[in-house]
Amino acid sequence: MTGPAASPDQGRLHAPEAYFLPAGSGSRHTIFPGVEIQTAAGTNLMLSVVRLEPHSVVTDHSHPHEQMGILLEGTLEFTVGGVTRLLGPGDMWRIPGGVVHRVRALDQPAMALDVFHPIREDYL
Amino acid sequence: MTGPAASPDQGRLHAPEAYFLPAGSGSRHTIFPGVEIQTAAGTNLMLSVVRLEPHSVVTDHSHPHEQMGILLEGTLEFTVGGVTRLLGPGDMWRIPGGVVHRVRALDQPAMALDVFHPIREDYL
Repeated sequence: MTGPAASPDQGRLHAPEAYFLPAGSGSRHTIFPGVEIQTAAGTNLMLSVVRLEPHSVVTDHSHPHEQMGILLEGTLEFTVGGVTRLLGPGDMWRIPGGVVHRVRALDQPAMALDVFHPIREDYL
Repeated sequence: MTGPAASPDQGRLHAPEAYFLPAGSGSRHTIFPGVEIQTAAGTNLMLSVVRLEPHSVVTDHSHPHEQMGILLEGTLEFTVGGVTRLLGPGDMWRIPGGVVHRVRALDQPAMALDVFHPIREDYL
């Protein structure tokens, strides 16, 4: 032995087969009615592909994790810290830890990418 | 005063106008010929929208930052730690800090989203 052993987590993420995740893989959760996420976790980062059905709602919530994201398809009404914006593709959000936010899909489906730091254990 | 003052950075990111970034905003850099990024930084997260022209190349490099990403449009030949994959839309990558990686666009343009932790000061 020439040094400390890598942690099991570091070993997992450094395995070559862990470098790539095919489309549609990852962990799936329905977090609100009509709102499905597909997540992939690294060590200190988590990606979450979010698919929202028309008229679905992510109700007011907050978490200590920092969150950023980008809208990929559709339109969303997004409220962060009491500030509401109507967002289209390419628009981004930046939510400091602890700030209350909510999302409402309009009459079309929408797809977004959310990113968290640190990883959300409840989304693994 | 009832507590410690927030750091200037925390103040900036907690300003309501900082919660949303319109499509196309952010900092722009041409990081390799034909490879343009548009970045947005939070406190411990950075998003980077990457546009690659046909046949553009991001040459072998590494950085201490953890990186994850997802291909949004097109096809990329992506190599991480010596492992090469041909990626299509929705495919993801997960690159631990310090692992060498490179990217090559084929005969069509491509668009990807990269995420870094911590933020890359050189991309601000």
